[in-house]
Amino acid sequence: MSTNGPTLPSRSDCEARDAADPLAAFRDRFVLEDGVIYLDGNSLGALPKATAGRLAAVVEEEWGRGLIRSWNTAGWMDQPRRVGDKIAALIGARPGEVVAADSTSVNIFKALTAALQLNSGRRVLLSERGSFPTDIYMMQGLETLLGGRVEARFVDAGEIGAALDGDVAVLLLTHVHYKTGRAWDMAALTRAAQDAGALVIWDLSHSAGALPVDLNGAGADFAVGCGYKYLNGGPGAPAYIYVAERHQAGAPPALAGWMGHGAPFEFDDRYWPSVGIERYRCGTPAVLGMAALEAGVDLLAEADMAALREKSCRLGDLFLSLTEALCPDQGFAVACPTDAAVRGSQVSLHHEHGYAIMQALIDAQVIGDFRAPDILRFGFAPLYVRYVDVYDAVATLAEIMRNRAWDRPEFQVRAAVT
Amino acid sequence: MSTNGPTLPSRSDCEARDAADPLAAFRDRFVLEDGVIYLDGNSLGALPKATAGRLAAVVEEEWGRGLIRSWNTAGWMDQPRRVGDKIAALIGARPGEVVAADSTSVNIFKALTAALQLNSGRRVLLSERGSFPTDIYMMQGLETLLGGRVEARFVDAGEIGAALDGDVAVLLLTHVHYKTGRAWDMAALTRAAQDAGALVIWDLSHSAGALPVDLNGAGADFAVGCGYKYLNGGPGAPAYIYVAERHQAGAPPALAGWMGHGAPFEFDDRYWPSVGIERYRCGTPAVLGMAALEAGVDLLAEADMAALREKSCRLGDLFLSLTEALCPDQGFAVACPTDAAVRGSQVSLHHEHGYAIMQALIDAQVIGDFRAPDILRFGFAPLYVRYVDVYDAVATLAEIMRNRAWDRPEFQVRAAVT
Repeated sequence: MSTNGPTLPSRSDCEARDAADPLAAFRDRFVLEDGVIYLDGNSLGALPKATAGRLAAVVEEEWGRGLIRSWNTAGWMDQPRRVGDKIAALIGARPGEVVAADSTSVNIFKALTAALQLNSGRRVLLSERGSFPTDIYMMQGLETLLGGRVEARFVDAGEIGAALDGDVAVLLLTHVHYKTGRAWDMAALTRAAQDAGALVIWDLSHSAGALPVDLNGAGADFAVGCGYKYLNGGPGAPAYIYVAERHQAGAPPALAGWMGHGAPFEFDDRYWPSVGIERYRCGTPAVLGMAALEAGVDLLAEADMAALREKSCRLGDLFLSLTEALCPDQGFAVACPTDAAVRGSQVSLHHEHGYAIMQALIDAQVIGDFRAPDILRFGFAPLYVRYVDVYDAVATLAEIMRNRAWDRPEFQVRAAVT
Repeated sequence: MSTNGPTLPSRSDCEARDAADPLAAFRDRFVLEDGVIYLDGNSLGALPKATAGRLAAVVEEEWGRGLIRSWNTAGWMDQPRRVGDKIAALIGARPGEVVAADSTSVNIFKALTAALQLNSGRRVLLSERGSFPTDIYMMQGLETLLGGRVEARFVDAGEIGAALDGDVAVLLLTHVHYKTGRAWDMAALTRAAQDAGALVIWDLSHSAGALPVDLNGAGADFAVGCGYKYLNGGPGAPAYIYVAERHQAGAPPALAGWMGHGAPFEFDDRYWPSVGIERYRCGTPAVLGMAALEAGVDLLAEADMAALREKSCRLGDLFLSLTEALCPDQGFAVACPTDAAVRGSQVSLHHEHGYAIMQALIDAQVIGDFRAPDILRFGFAPLYVRYVDVYDAVATLAEIMRNRAWDRPEFQVRAAVT
């Protein structure tokens, strides 16, 4: 790396950018401790200030006082669809195409099995080698379950196009790669897959809420995503599934749960799915987690997506240019696209001591995360990350490298969760 | 029905029973509004007073301040196993045999697919006609998914024994029937099924926490259950799955999620399951819901199960005898076993105007529920239901019947959730 001195912004330049930021006021809507620089909203979003009160009302009023009556009076039954519709508005889907339910993993299973039914003449589930583990693992689990009926196949990113042969039933891709931050061209890939007779499932976990997603515009078939990253829904928030309206009738759910039944309170002995997206509900919705998710989504819905994206790109570019300037010859290699147009809301750096460096950063109150084997990952949730945070984070990183502050025994010990 | 006057307890007899109740002090540990008689804890348990504070701490401290670090520092990663071990102690299982995760429906799917792997030479999934819908529906969904490989078969309760032929891979039964409250003899049925070469899955949703369950003593293979009834975990609380230790190694999960991987933070491209019960985790745990569930389970764990069962039986017997005495010739027919020994912690009555009568009861602050086509259901959570509550509930029912208070138009309109 080399410095690019002339264009390097100063800390006061960053303060000026914050002062001019049209999203600046959102930061005060979150609980954020002074002195902590949080660059891991791509893993767990920060706590909206409104959430604690919303959750307390659900617990104390709806559960405590309303008790079982709240299924009707507090709208618990409609919550998955209501929250789903709100998420739909963030990802270019129509009302009735998204339902909030279960985990991302379980929703992947629903989407894979639905796609296999719609494309029953084909047997290959295709994804990218090195894609997010749960995408890959759920494919492998389904392959084992269905025996010789299907094959889970993984190829390198550059080979996806060529791998779309006449056997591929469904292509599952994560829109923004969790490690590298590389964003697929959703419309182009969807078209390529559909031209080859395949259906596509997009995992939006690392993109929804931070960059524009236009599922309908891309003609997407299926999508899933989690609620706890840029949607700020809280740890283990319910996930969601999108099924294009044109596919819903033809794909009864393999996870044929009570809550997806057409008339659950008839207690019919025969399963027949609800009309529409509600069929992809399965068991009882996680009412408490859903309330926290709704608070996060409501807050995000107030922001302009174009402004979010623009700020996100600028934060990432700033981080990369500052790192290049302030940490030269320190063994870092950029692991993400340098072109913001094809990058999600995160940057990643390779470093042989990546784990220890990240522990030193966290110890210094700059919170990012580490992804094996050697990636330091920094996420920029544009609702609450400031330009000055990026400046201070890189300055801290530079100091850690200069002092070899990462080279302490306690920073080498891997925690259970990285 | 006819009165059985001589043995009928008075309201002051009920007050005396409450005064002598060894569980009486537990009632004050719950949020219960004055004047409301809550006989639906078998559907949604009441709110423990400790829960709001526990949840607020998780939200404000662990999520708000700890942020991503709480996966390690607040024990979020261990939560499913920790809560699972606590539930294990309530249902006669050993530590390491239960994990809290997902919904009951999803856990049924895990158990069914695991049992099919262990018993791969057989093709029939057997259950009781009229069993809880999600049990039946998940079987039907799996039958469709696996095509000709398996058959979901349903017989009447009395024919289960005879239906255990050489084709049955797995028998799925709900321990206590959701409508009638009838309790199966778990040990006897498990033995009969295993003698016939089948594996058994017990759905404990309507029994765990209210009557003694001894999975290990019965030699049970699999079990599932929900967290929001007698465990008082809150609306949509995480469910749990029990897999006997002897079966765990031989049954890799079909829902092969990231969190069940042997080393999730290695981000390996190949799925290999964790050793032990953790393999039946799938996606990211619902941390908020899990915290509320843990508070409910902790409270229940303080109570003596034999005392809970004894009180539960007495409350049910009291309800039935009072109803017989106070509501004679009103068109009720008992829909549950009159012998408490084979009855769960609920009683049920048939009535042609059951729905409207239940609405009139709820309007009078006596909360039970209705199950189509004609069942009034009353649950007795022994931690907080008093003998005097049962007395007052039946007195209210008698008054409603006497005045035909149920015969109002608004009580005939079916709500979305009954």
